[in-house]
Amino acid sequence: MPFIDELTDKLHEECGVFGIYSYDSEIDIANASVFGLYALQHRGQESCGIYVSDRGVPVGVKRVGLVHEVFTKEALEILGTGQMAVGHVRYGTTGCNTSRNAQPMHVNHAKGSLVVAHNGNLTNAGELRDQFEMDGCIFHSTNDTEVIAYAITRQRIKSSTIEEAVCKAVDSLVGAYSLVMMSSTKMICCRDPLGFRPLVIGKIGEHGENVPPHAYVVCSETCALDSVGATFVRDVLPGEIVVIDKDGLRSIPHNVDKGRPKHMCIFEYIYFARPDSFMDGNSVHISRENAGKMLAMRYPVQADVVIGIPDSGMDAAVGYAKQSGIPYAIGMIKNRYIARTFIQPNQSDRTNGVRIKLNPVKHVVNGKRVIFVDDSIVRGTTVSRIVKILREAGATEVHAMSAAPPFRYPCYFGTDVDTRENLIANQHETYADIARAIGADSVGYLAVEDLPMLVRPKQGICHACFTGDYNVPIPEEPLLKSKFENKLPFDENQLRLEEK
Amino acid sequence: MPFIDELTDKLHEECGVFGIYSYDSEIDIANASVFGLYALQHRGQESCGIYVSDRGVPVGVKRVGLVHEVFTKEALEILGTGQMAVGHVRYGTTGCNTSRNAQPMHVNHAKGSLVVAHNGNLTNAGELRDQFEMDGCIFHSTNDTEVIAYAITRQRIKSSTIEEAVCKAVDSLVGAYSLVMMSSTKMICCRDPLGFRPLVIGKIGEHGENVPPHAYVVCSETCALDSVGATFVRDVLPGEIVVIDKDGLRSIPHNVDKGRPKHMCIFEYIYFARPDSFMDGNSVHISRENAGKMLAMRYPVQADVVIGIPDSGMDAAVGYAKQSGIPYAIGMIKNRYIARTFIQPNQSDRTNGVRIKLNPVKHVVNGKRVIFVDDSIVRGTTVSRIVKILREAGATEVHAMSAAPPFRYPCYFGTDVDTRENLIANQHETYADIARAIGADSVGYLAVEDLPMLVRPKQGICHACFTGDYNVPIPEEPLLKSKFENKLPFDENQLRLEEK
Amino acid sequence: MPFIDELTDKLHEECGVFGIYSYDSEIDIANASVFGLYALQHRGQESCGIYVSDRGVPVGVKRVGLVHEVFTKEALEILGTGQMAVGHVRYGTTGCNTSRNAQPMHVNHAKGSLVVAHNGNLTNAGELRDQFEMDGCIFHSTNDTEVIAYAITRQRIKSSTIEEAVCKAVDSLVGAYSLVMMSSTKMICCRDPLGFRPLVIGKIGEHGENVPPHAYVVCSETCALDSVGATFVRDVLPGEIVVIDKDGLRSIPHNVDKGRPKHMCIFEYIYFARPDSFMDGNSVHISRENAGKMLAMRYPVQADVVIGIPDSGMDAAVGYAKQSGIPYAIGMIKNRYIARTFIQPNQSDRTNGVRIKLNPVKHVVNGKRVIFVDDSIVRGTTVSRIVKILREAGATEVHAMSAAPPFRYPCYFGTDVDTRENLIANQHETYADIARAIGADSVGYLAVEDLPMLVRPKQGICHACFTGDYNVPIPEEPLLKSKFENKLPFDENQLRLEEK
Amino acid sequence: MPFIDELTDKLHEECGVFGIYSYDSEIDIANASVFGLYALQHRGQESCGIYVSDRGVPVGVKRVGLVHEVFTKEALEILGTGQMAVGHVRYGTTGCNTSRNAQPMHVNHAKGSLVVAHNGNLTNAGELRDQFEMDGCIFHSTNDTEVIAYAITRQRIKSSTIEEAVCKAVDSLVGAYSLVMMSSTKMICCRDPLGFRPLVIGKIGEHGENVPPHAYVVCSETCALDSVGATFVRDVLPGEIVVIDKDGLRSIPHNVDKGRPKHMCIFEYIYFARPDSFMDGNSVHISRENAGKMLAMRYPVQADVVIGIPDSGMDAAVGYAKQSGIPYAIGMIKNRYIARTFIQPNQSDRTNGVRIKLNPVKHVVNGKRVIFVDDSIVRGTTVSRIVKILREAGATEVHAMSAAPPFRYPCYFGTDVDTRENLIANQHETYADIARAIGADSVGYLAVEDLPMLVRPKQGICHACFTGDYNVPIPEEPLLKSKFENKLPFDENQLRLEEK
Repeated sequence: MPFIDELTDKLHEECGVFGIYSYDSEIDIANASVFGLYALQHRGQESCGIYVSDRGVPVGVKRVGLVHEVFTKEALEILGTGQMAVGHVRYGTTGCNTSRNAQPMHVNHAKGSLVVAHNGNLTNAGELRDQFEMDGCIFHSTNDTEVIAYAITRQRIKSSTIEEAVCKAVDSLVGAYSLVMMSSTKMICCRDPLGFRPLVIGKIGEHGENVPPHAYVVCSETCALDSVGATFVRDVLPGEIVVIDKDGLRSIPHNVDKGRPKHMCIFEYIYFARPDSFMDGNSVHISRENAGKMLAMRYPVQADVVIGIPDSGMDAAVGYAKQSGIPYAIGMIKNRYIARTFIQPNQSDRTNGVRIKLNPVKHVVNGKRVIFVDDSIVRGTTVSRIVKILREAGATEVHAMSAAPPFRYPCYFGTDVDTRENLIANQHETYADIARAIGADSVGYLAVEDLPMLVRPKQGICHACFTGDYNVPIPEEPLLKSKFENKLPFDENQLRLEEK
Repeated sequence: MPFIDELTDKLHEECGVFGIYSYDSEIDIANASVFGLYALQHRGQESCGIYVSDRGVPVGVKRVGLVHEVFTKEALEILGTGQMAVGHVRYGTTGCNTSRNAQPMHVNHAKGSLVVAHNGNLTNAGELRDQFEMDGCIFHSTNDTEVIAYAITRQRIKSSTIEEAVCKAVDSLVGAYSLVMMSSTKMICCRDPLGFRPLVIGKIGEHGENVPPHAYVVCSETCALDSVGATFVRDVLPGEIVVIDKDGLRSIPHNVDKGRPKHMCIFEYIYFARPDSFMDGNSVHISRENAGKMLAMRYPVQADVVIGIPDSGMDAAVGYAKQSGIPYAIGMIKNRYIARTFIQPNQSDRTNGVRIKLNPVKHVVNGKRVIFVDDSIVRGTTVSRIVKILREAGATEVHAMSAAPPFRYPCYFGTDVDTRENLIANQHETYADIARAIGADSVGYLAVEDLPMLVRPKQGICHACFTGDYNVPIPEEPLLKSKFENKLPFDENQLRLEEK
Repeated sequence: MPFIDELTDKLHEECGVFGIYSYDSEIDIANASVFGLYALQHRGQESCGIYVSDRGVPVGVKRVGLVHEVFTKEALEILGTGQMAVGHVRYGTTGCNTSRNAQPMHVNHAKGSLVVAHNGNLTNAGELRDQFEMDGCIFHSTNDTEVIAYAITRQRIKSSTIEEAVCKAVDSLVGAYSLVMMSSTKMICCRDPLGFRPLVIGKIGEHGENVPPHAYVVCSETCALDSVGATFVRDVLPGEIVVIDKDGLRSIPHNVDKGRPKHMCIFEYIYFARPDSFMDGNSVHISRENAGKMLAMRYPVQADVVIGIPDSGMDAAVGYAKQSGIPYAIGMIKNRYIARTFIQPNQSDRTNGVRIKLNPVKHVVNGKRVIFVDDSIVRGTTVSRIVKILREAGATEVHAMSAAPPFRYPCYFGTDVDTRENLIANQHETYADIARAIGADSVGYLAVEDLPMLVRPKQGICHACFTGDYNVPIPEEPLLKSKFENKLPFDENQLRLEEK
Repeated sequence: MPFIDELTDKLHEECGVFGIYSYDSEIDIANASVFGLYALQHRGQESCGIYVSDRGVPVGVKRVGLVHEVFTKEALEILGTGQMAVGHVRYGTTGCNTSRNAQPMHVNHAKGSLVVAHNGNLTNAGELRDQFEMDGCIFHSTNDTEVIAYAITRQRIKSSTIEEAVCKAVDSLVGAYSLVMMSSTKMICCRDPLGFRPLVIGKIGEHGENVPPHAYVVCSETCALDSVGATFVRDVLPGEIVVIDKDGLRSIPHNVDKGRPKHMCIFEYIYFARPDSFMDGNSVHISRENAGKMLAMRYPVQADVVIGIPDSGMDAAVGYAKQSGIPYAIGMIKNRYIARTFIQPNQSDRTNGVRIKLNPVKHVVNGKRVIFVDDSIVRGTTVSRIVKILREAGATEVHAMSAAPPFRYPCYFGTDVDTRENLIANQHETYADIARAIGADSVGYLAVEDLPMLVRPKQGICHACFTGDYNVPIPEEPLLKSKFENKLPFDENQLRLEEK
């Protein structure tokens, strides 16, 4: 039972990716990859892995666990040194959180080896898998990374270069994918044509024009660049394939179509990404602050104090306070000692008021009309609990503000939204009903039409989980994932053992 | 190497204590103790332990590790059930972080057994130890908890009750001590006559007058009461001895002198305690906000933004912003995945700008005059690094504010202040010199004379680390601790093994 | 560094397999599999694994470690219950001892899933792998079990039953293989046409004619039948395919040719198998005793005492003593606390006489002419050391007897013989030279022509490692294994992490 | 649940001790101590520990676990280097197997520190403990080592040297004790006046007369000398105190009385010690062989084969065979993969014939009249099981021989004999009754009057467990141990946690 989310009902991103290609033997790329993944840990806490390639030979360590648990001194000794490395952090959805699904995936094929780290979700993975299986392919895992590995390998046989194979392969993939991969000699990175998930390029050091820097870094968020002392170069473009090898970095604008609108997941801004990251030119923190300001304009409330729910509601709360003029305060404290697994509180009737993860600052809310801002409302259980806690601490009014619009639809691009029936926004007709359901005096949600204000200058975004506008073909129900799960319901659960 | 403090030079509190005495067999006291300690984890991350007493037989689990690491399902099975439990979290100073020193301490003596959990530090422990050793006593540990256990045991032989023995024993103790103890049938809690360290009483449920509640809880901070669903009753008074047994709770006002000023450690308010706790009637959060307001009055600076250094500088930053009218913003992000041990970044010249624990929100500080507020400045290494990071992120001016006065003196009451020479305040004559040394445009410290404003209504506080006014006899140099360390420099290092 | 073999230079078998199909829900098949593997532990100490199939869904636990280390209570909870289970113990050759190569292997294909446990070695694995890769197949591991899984899967698509697919697939396999496999509904077991490796059938309980027993068990050795309370039914025939499903057990005599001589590995009798097992009708213990008798006849030596080197030299020593009339004694003691990994003795000049694994009983050998019998001599390092130890203990003469002929050739069928140059028999021309090299007064080896005496009634045996007569096509040099290793020298070394 | 003894009902020795004092900095004393303890592992498998003293500062590692589990590379790094070291292996009796009771014990007192490793059992520990507690002493553990530490410490205050204190202290101790201790500068070893438990002196290297060797080693058995390359010097005499310091080794014949008979525990010869050890001039192996010969003379049986029960029945079986002329054979195989903890076989009615630890060699016993020799018969459960197994394997007659006399009385000197009622010899009047009870055709026990034949030249032995002749005052019932257990029934069970 993952304690980390015990009292929350947050959405889960599935992955963060990291790659480094070094031209400078002084740079310890295994060590750098560890700190890169540590900066991306918020994107996946279930398992993590790193492969280091030394003259074509990839050596890897991957396991269920947090980055600091998996990458001990011994693990670094195993990884050793090399020219390039690829890393991955992963959030496993229920029933699939196994070592078998840990990434990066390393496979061998007719022309060498391939290491793949993937962030996203294909909408045609099941279809491709069926097709490959009919040709006699066998699958060791349940994730679509293995589908991608097959798609590339099968093209590789018929292609003269790995780039060519990747170009052909991605044309068969539908959905969201930000990939960082290694062949024997090259690092290949790409982003799907709609740019659902972020992917940025950075560099360490500088050697002057036409000479590569000390190293290139490609990763999900800019905060990982900062963690290794790299400077931001640019975002990988939607549809672009970037190849890094001994001769430097070059771009293959394979599916880049500058006219086509992007579909960057708006929830990356609202919740997934770290506030110190910027994506496609936008500061995550500023986006969140703007969400708070929009909320204040749409839902002006008479109140004494605005508080944020740590951690991802803080930025929007500051924005709400600024816009409304109502004082901002720190009114809710989160226990910082996060554990992936922990015993459950064994609540008797006598002790059922336990406040383990979140506790109010009584003096801040007592006798006050309180507005609290959280990043989003999913099933409504967390928000109900917060309302109750605030009232017990003496708040005279409690107003709940969600920095995201109401969730109504499943996501097919790598976010684990709850089933439709469990989403509170699908259970009530009006916001007033929701407010009643969660016990608040009022409730406000960021308006879908305000979403574009979060990314400036204006860019295409994906807001399908709020609107149902997917813009790409999606699988018929039952979902892709369920299909896999029927095949492989529960497998190779080494993780629990390893966690001991 | 404790990664948790890798980039910080914070002071360390040594302990948190927790006790529960239950009258209701439905309350799982082992489970409750775990969540109580989890709420107190910020007071000690080195080792932790719980003893559960079932009809006089104490069973315990204690080990090096965080609460969630030590108290697995198996550990809870060992603890089993009982009527009362005592728990402890501990921060070990260098060279002493051994299982041998983990608490609570359980000993057997002529009249039964005694379990002791101690927060504080005796100033005459060395003297008592010498005296006991001359009578043939042997010591297994280097901590003063064993001295306290002997002091009580030796009185116990001559006393008819444990209360009587404790009363006699505490009269021989000098210094800071907040104790939660168990004899075979009673829980005994006490606080030194000057009240250096906090200790609060709570209760779970209510049965009406003259009947005990479902359980009593005694612990270091009110946040631990919240974590188990207990309501606050009152602080244990300085000099008071509280006895809880089958008949309920009764107070022995042994050394209580209402006229004598308290000496509550002011750094409990500034840094140690959780902001959602309140002590001796004061909200920790409000104290910190007040510290920020005082700073804004003493050091008005022309600036564009006020930011706080997470986590303990946030409250004071909000206070500074409120008082000054300069906008508050979230300008610095801390990696939330805290690890007690972790590999070190292996920095080459190429990657030495790594920002692993703290990273700025570039868009918040770029092109701005920035004031940042941290809880305190010890050696100055962290603060220098923050100044550098902010300038690199584009801050045009950087002003450093410390929510504590300058540290200049050692603490003898349980806080691990660095050696006098390492304290930056002892290395420079003026604040301008310090500002230059850390690279800031200016530096401000909370004034010693403003400290009383932090605790309202006015109460006695201990500010010896800033002023050298100890108010009680302190050991001659070399310090007590060094003396122990000469005797037992490094011992029984099971911890490293256990941490694997 | 595997301490277990620190002072020995033994050959290694690579695997033991175990399968159980139960008709009785009272039989805990996961538990039984654990004890079956525990009985087979001598066949592989590197990694082990079990898959339990419950109504078609296989759930598995596999890891680097000994059986008692991997199969904790938690692991058994994960395995749960089911109708059939397959288990495996494995000895990893250097550089390949990774979790990635742990067995059984579980894969998914177009028509369901397949779990494979394999003992043996294909001589055409490289060829098959190349062929499959050219069709776009990807390989996750370096072992030939994955090749077998592909061979079966690719036939499965075109076949109406799994039996049919297995029949077609095994026709493409060359070399040694004893397989225990599970499809969704059936257990399929087979042995290569030459019967290199053993495989036996047993049953638990009895229901009368034409009704299945409570369970069928198929495993490498009869000692594993004993460990689960099963009675021996018969050996699987070379070339036979055995199918066990809800209707009972049936035989497909696919490649069974009663006229063709078997090629059972003679070293199974001499060293690999447990003395309490019997194979193809022969008692391993009796075979070893016979080897000792043959030695006594070929190499009659005047001596005072015959001792055996524990554990696998004991049986032959008893045989030698019986035949020669020289008293048998227990003259060498082995430390029973076997560890897979352990620190190395840090020998200074002063302490280089350390006797950690083997120590002589001084009173037995002092002043005596000693004959010692060991199972075999590989590089000669162990035997040299034993000679030295016996002389230091006072033996006046030392005669070394090997219960196996001299090793001269590599094995392609699953035994890890050292490289040709390291084999002491390839370094000297005469036995007298070898005796001099190891410091013995004389040396004797079982004669190749006496090998048939070990298996009675007379049966075909494989003695290629002594004679170079392989009887099947073998790969050109460099060996198959080296070829794989060039591709995947060292990978995914989770094992070291997990062993902590 | 300790699997190691799952199917056996053996007696348990409680300890092995090891000490090394080096004059040669090239000798790695921590490493040597590990291998010394590894050789003594058979004397205790519950917990182990080593303290290394470097210029007076003892550093230790001790934990529940086998030697190879506790002493990893990291543990050796903690131990570091030094001049002397003391080690201990311990078998914990039920309810006391806690880290808290692990040895050596390290305490600090008025004049320095003391490290104590103890093998044996005091009969007046309870009395001494009461007396010390009445003076205000506190006890952390339940073992009598802490009592010894107090006894010495209390004398140390009044004595000018540690030797003087030890001399005075041992005069207050009654019972069995073989001690290896370290003060800041000296190693002090002693053996109780009756010599219940063994203790031997060895040396590494030689420097010529009047100059110390490279190192002295003092330990429980000579096999530990062999394991570190030391040569045997002599036994420590009963009542002798041996001091080793920078000036060499000197003897204090404090309680040595050459006329007084020794009381060496005869069960050391029969079961506890390793057969390659010799004690007080006697080879353990020869003693056991002699026991077998005595049995053959007392109980001549018409039979076809003599087999030994591994491991400790093997030597006596060889003796029985030699004396009787009946052929010796290897008829019973023991699984070599010993685990301290393991899951239990989950036996249904269908699988209750499981043979996990011991399995017969069917071809050896089938159709034969079998004599089997085991080291002893305690409760009779193991021997009954063996009889059953042999009959199932086809033995036509089964005769059970015990190399020890019948157990009838408790041991107060460090051996954990079962309660009187559980001993099979106390449940039946005649050997014929016992034979019937265990299902054997006949049963034979070594005669008490033959015991002296095991130690040659003739020496005093302790045979109280067979005869009830204790020769020293013993505690009134209830036993000492039970008394402790009432006080401290179950405590600080870190072991289970650490074992994970």
